[in-house]
Amino acid sequence: MSKPLPIDSYSPGSFLTEDFMLQSDEAKRLYHDYAKSMPIIDYHCHLPPKEIADNQIFNNLTEIWLRGDHYKWRAMRALGVDEAYITGNASDKEKFLKWASIVPQVMRNPLYHWTHMELKNPFGFNQVLSLKNAEEVYERANDKLKTLSTNTLLNHFNVARVGTTDDPVDSLEYHKKIADSNSNFKVVPTFRPDPVLNIEDQESFNTYIDKLESASGKNIESLDQLYAALKNRHDAFSAHGCKASDHGQVHIFAADYTESEVRSLFAKARLGITVSAEEGLKFKSAVQYQLALMDHEKGWVQQFHLGAIRDNNMRLLNSLGKNTGFDSIGDYQQIEVMSKFFNRLDSDNRLAKTIIYNVNPSDNAAFATMAGNYQDGTIRGKMQWGSGWWYLDQKDGMEEQMNILSNMGVLSCFVGMITDSRSFLSFPRHEYFRRILCNLFGNDIVNGELPGDIPWIGKMIQDICYNNAKEYFGF
Amino acid sequence: MSKPLPIDSYSPGSFLTEDFMLQSDEAKRLYHDYAKSMPIIDYHCHLPPKEIADNQIFNNLTEIWLRGDHYKWRAMRALGVDEAYITGNASDKEKFLKWASIVPQVMRNPLYHWTHMELKNPFGFNQVLSLKNAEEVYERANDKLKTLSTNTLLNHFNVARVGTTDDPVDSLEYHKKIADSNSNFKVVPTFRPDPVLNIEDQESFNTYIDKLESASGKNIESLDQLYAALKNRHDAFSAHGCKASDHGQVHIFAADYTESEVRSLFAKARLGITVSAEEGLKFKSAVQYQLALMDHEKGWVQQFHLGAIRDNNMRLLNSLGKNTGFDSIGDYQQIEVMSKFFNRLDSDNRLAKTIIYNVNPSDNAAFATMAGNYQDGTIRGKMQWGSGWWYLDQKDGMEEQMNILSNMGVLSCFVGMITDSRSFLSFPRHEYFRRILCNLFGNDIVNGELPGDIPWIGKMIQDICYNNAKEYFGF
Amino acid sequence: MSKPLPIDSYSPGSFLTEDFMLQSDEAKRLYHDYAKSMPIIDYHCHLPPKEIADNQIFNNLTEIWLRGDHYKWRAMRALGVDEAYITGNASDKEKFLKWASIVPQVMRNPLYHWTHMELKNPFGFNQVLSLKNAEEVYERANDKLKTLSTNTLLNHFNVARVGTTDDPVDSLEYHKKIADSNSNFKVVPTFRPDPVLNIEDQESFNTYIDKLESASGKNIESLDQLYAALKNRHDAFSAHGCKASDHGQVHIFAADYTESEVRSLFAKARLGITVSAEEGLKFKSAVQYQLALMDHEKGWVQQFHLGAIRDNNMRLLNSLGKNTGFDSIGDYQQIEVMSKFFNRLDSDNRLAKTIIYNVNPSDNAAFATMAGNYQDGTIRGKMQWGSGWWYLDQKDGMEEQMNILSNMGVLSCFVGMITDSRSFLSFPRHEYFRRILCNLFGNDIVNGELPGDIPWIGKMIQDICYNNAKEYFGF
Repeated sequence: MSKPLPIDSYSPGSFLTEDFMLQSDEAKRLYHDYAKSMPIIDYHCHLPPKEIADNQIFNNLTEIWLRGDHYKWRAMRALGVDEAYITGNASDKEKFLKWASIVPQVMRNPLYHWTHMELKNPFGFNQVLSLKNAEEVYERANDKLKTLSTNTLLNHFNVARVGTTDDPVDSLEYHKKIADSNSNFKVVPTFRPDPVLNIEDQESFNTYIDKLESASGKNIESLDQLYAALKNRHDAFSAHGCKASDHGQVHIFAADYTESEVRSLFAKARLGITVSAEEGLKFKSAVQYQLALMDHEKGWVQQFHLGAIRDNNMRLLNSLGKNTGFDSIGDYQQIEVMSKFFNRLDSDNRLAKTIIYNVNPSDNAAFATMAGNYQDGTIRGKMQWGSGWWYLDQKDGMEEQMNILSNMGVLSCFVGMITDSRSFLSFPRHEYFRRILCNLFGNDIVNGELPGDIPWIGKMIQDICYNNAKEYFGF
Repeated sequence: MSKPLPIDSYSPGSFLTEDFMLQSDEAKRLYHDYAKSMPIIDYHCHLPPKEIADNQIFNNLTEIWLRGDHYKWRAMRALGVDEAYITGNASDKEKFLKWASIVPQVMRNPLYHWTHMELKNPFGFNQVLSLKNAEEVYERANDKLKTLSTNTLLNHFNVARVGTTDDPVDSLEYHKKIADSNSNFKVVPTFRPDPVLNIEDQESFNTYIDKLESASGKNIESLDQLYAALKNRHDAFSAHGCKASDHGQVHIFAADYTESEVRSLFAKARLGITVSAEEGLKFKSAVQYQLALMDHEKGWVQQFHLGAIRDNNMRLLNSLGKNTGFDSIGDYQQIEVMSKFFNRLDSDNRLAKTIIYNVNPSDNAAFATMAGNYQDGTIRGKMQWGSGWWYLDQKDGMEEQMNILSNMGVLSCFVGMITDSRSFLSFPRHEYFRRILCNLFGNDIVNGELPGDIPWIGKMIQDICYNNAKEYFGF
Repeated sequence: MSKPLPIDSYSPGSFLTEDFMLQSDEAKRLYHDYAKSMPIIDYHCHLPPKEIADNQIFNNLTEIWLRGDHYKWRAMRALGVDEAYITGNASDKEKFLKWASIVPQVMRNPLYHWTHMELKNPFGFNQVLSLKNAEEVYERANDKLKTLSTNTLLNHFNVARVGTTDDPVDSLEYHKKIADSNSNFKVVPTFRPDPVLNIEDQESFNTYIDKLESASGKNIESLDQLYAALKNRHDAFSAHGCKASDHGQVHIFAADYTESEVRSLFAKARLGITVSAEEGLKFKSAVQYQLALMDHEKGWVQQFHLGAIRDNNMRLLNSLGKNTGFDSIGDYQQIEVMSKFFNRLDSDNRLAKTIIYNVNPSDNAAFATMAGNYQDGTIRGKMQWGSGWWYLDQKDGMEEQMNILSNMGVLSCFVGMITDSRSFLSFPRHEYFRRILCNLFGNDIVNGELPGDIPWIGKMIQDICYNNAKEYFGF
């Protein structure tokens, strides 16, 4: 097991050296002297609290690395890999070998960098993965995994704070267990109430409201009772250290409605009477507003992930389930509803700290500048345009986000990177982000577009990597 | 005639050398050792089959180079050139001299590169074109043209396969003649049924349906008869080696409809009764779906060119006709209808191989990721996001398309470049694409973002240049 | 006062040297030998004619530099600065010190470059501004300001022509005074009739129409009288040298209407009866068309600034007023209405010279190519896609605009840069633009993408910097 990996037909050469992505001496200094050692605050991700609470060990590389990773799955399907090797009945080892066999074909996709960064850290591999060394990589990584529990990994990656993503009906038992465990890192829940908006899908909506009754211990027959139940869970989340909500939607809901309209349509829905699309929109608009008020009251950060089009492949969705790789980028109009919603909240000064994320890069400039409209001097970077999300979480996407934020907003108060990931191996994406960030500044200095004040710029970079998020969320 | 061209006021310097666009040694190796010698598959273009069948010779440079080239026309009009010298009564020579006189002013437009690449190959000129050397260029090129028939040119450019664009009512007589001619290249038709969707323009629609009756030898009074006639032509195209359909539309049509609705509105239209916009949309949606099923049945590739806004200048359109340079980029919503259409086809696994092309670069990311939703592992790169189209067919546009495809999809299974051109001199655009492709990979290696495995990357490049298209179309 | 400024913790290093932004020897030659000395035509800005007519002197740096500058205000608010120091009661000096204190935090925003370019020219500072040298900068700049009247500044910056932005009801008295003053530069008004479209806001609309009655000396009870009054002002503007109109709108208005509909709804509005949104759109469409005909008749240039979403923060808007930093980028559909409007005007050849500006960069390609549809060879660059506007007026935005214009249109006939500014210190933005323009060409030459014909390219650059605008506007 300890013999060296076979040298592949191609050595990594200057690929993935310690100066990876750092094209200037200035960038190298900024990264190595300032960015590298900062702790990680991963304030938005999808790590399962249970696995942290259980300090889980993974049986093999497939389990920790391929299971649930729809980025890899999409690439495998595009390259003609049979579903058996993706989500199907093939063995974990077969799945890994299949993945390894296509890795050379995903060059230029972020998967190619992530794969090799993650094999390097924490596994210590320095070779390029392909079918040739796949068996050995698999065996050695599996060996190494025996020593890598979830908590070992969080500590290894210098993670200070994790914000998971949690349903209001969640009991938060695992968060409690983690909090009691006295670890170096803190894990807090995030309030993600998407299902409570989805009134048009009546059956699952009512099932969900029933769950919310159980979780809150409150009867929910009226709209006011719904709000009370949500408030109850909101309070419970707060008690577990929650500092943020999160919403995944096509766009912000901001239709006109009256409270009485919404009251009666909610009552209708609870009786099993169908609600129209127009009524549904009123309901969503009302509940969204109510949730936003709660966030403001608590001093939370409300996050909106906007613009994805879901469930584009019903055939495979039906056979494989949600979040299996069939969601993509929509082209919805975003801006007028967003302005209306935030303007209403702001009108009586009840707009919470807010992060808006767009999945369509065509919305970059509109989102970046919308955020600026609600900066009122009371909180540094009160409204944030979030880091490159999902398909935009790659080098070009992150550079574009940071360049547009620089040009149209203020980069120095940016709260920075998050993995948005389900995997404990994704933390090198913070390293990736930091290298890219340092490289941008390095290039600017080299090109004479910024003065060469490394200590000052280094400090700004440390803010973006860690300090801003810490202060903003109140961690 | 053989005396050297006058040296212009500026020599090309390092412009357009053999390493044009290749900024690194790695890029040079990739291009010269791997990409350059691959044959060309131009699976989507507008070359006239008759000219190939006739092995046509062109009388002068204007005839082969300016006639029908609305890219050049737009530039000339922008620069204040009178229409007489563009599509009007000026002599061919006068038109050429006028074009030459404005070439120095189109620097940074792709026309500037195309012009000089095409003068270099096949004409062998190494000077920058301007009014100063225009007369001599014209005479020498005209001399050379005596030896350059359409077939000579196709062989000269190492073209293996051409996919023309043909109306279902076309008799395909010229394709038959070409197929019988035993040439080194193959020319196949592409089924482009746009006119059959255009039911709202009743007069031209009925005229078209009458033509379709003649071409198919089938009476068309009912919708079923329409489908039968289309199927008849679809079969005929298939018999001539057709492997693809093509559709030019503002967006995909995916309205809800019932067969009986569409049956009756088609019958209405055939009787000369006006069809409303809403009815028209139902009809288009139904026929589009039906055509998609035929494509799937045959194993064809369906292509969609989406998002152009046509006929923006009715005054000049009326005086000059279609395709004379008055179409541009629209900002239509594309994604929900696309998802609905493909999802429906995929739901019972009748989605054909598909290429989607967008003309608005703001749709790049949405198109790139939409294609990924229908990758199901059965066919390598089953749904493709097509190469930079029309206004996007320039260096920045191609780089952006390949970078986004890399980041959000899988570049290695990309079926690559097409000219989409009406000109036999446009094949250097494949060279242009290949240089740009090699340069992207070269830069990645130089920047340490990819390992320096030239043979492997060279193989991927060869796939993108030729092998992928060959396999995908089944040529 | 004359002792040297304290050296800051960081010296500018290679920042802001005389070769700022010029990355190649070719770029340096193009800038220093060709671009630098060209006079400035700032054909669209918001300089107050009164201040020019009065040859105003400014009391201090805050007055000339911070007052009215909502770019700086947005940055300050984002960084948590209290409104007292922005638009509030703090003293001018306190406001300046606050601004200086956040300047190091706006690195990568165009404000950072503008700030230091403007401190360098005209003030002669070579240090990076921060709280450390702020007091001294303030005092020395205030000293210098005693010698810098508005007219001194216009001459200092080699400004040949200024196009201000004026309301049709403006008496133009200050323009007359300037014209009579025999200065080296010319200042002409621009006709900006936005308020006359805003019929839905009935009270302010009628107030405005009343003002228009006074200004034109014409009774306005009917639509025809409205047109007559507008024509009267249009003529008056023309008599004062006006060569252009300007319109700020979400998008072009091009609804179908009949003259009689519009006549009666205007009469209704004048009687104080509420006009519906649909009626309002008809009115706007009619008046917009009428104004466009006037522009054509006079040979003016009509400018459209499209796509901003205004008044997103009503709370602060109500307390601070218009243009205080709460407008941003919208995502409106632009193209079909634009095509309809221009097509109608062009159909009987009454389309004026036109510049279209978009604020959302996602519209870049659609705007660039739309302009090309109306080039008809009669006027060089008849329809222009305008320079990067507002949020796009920064290095990346300008580069993207020029690259897309190059790729999809013709850069050489571009009428170039404008400040769109309210400040007499903004002229270095022309220098900024010119450096960026020269750098683009320089890079192309270095990369072998253009021949190294410096004299020819230098001439094109001079055209873009000055000659094209001079000829296009008929200055």
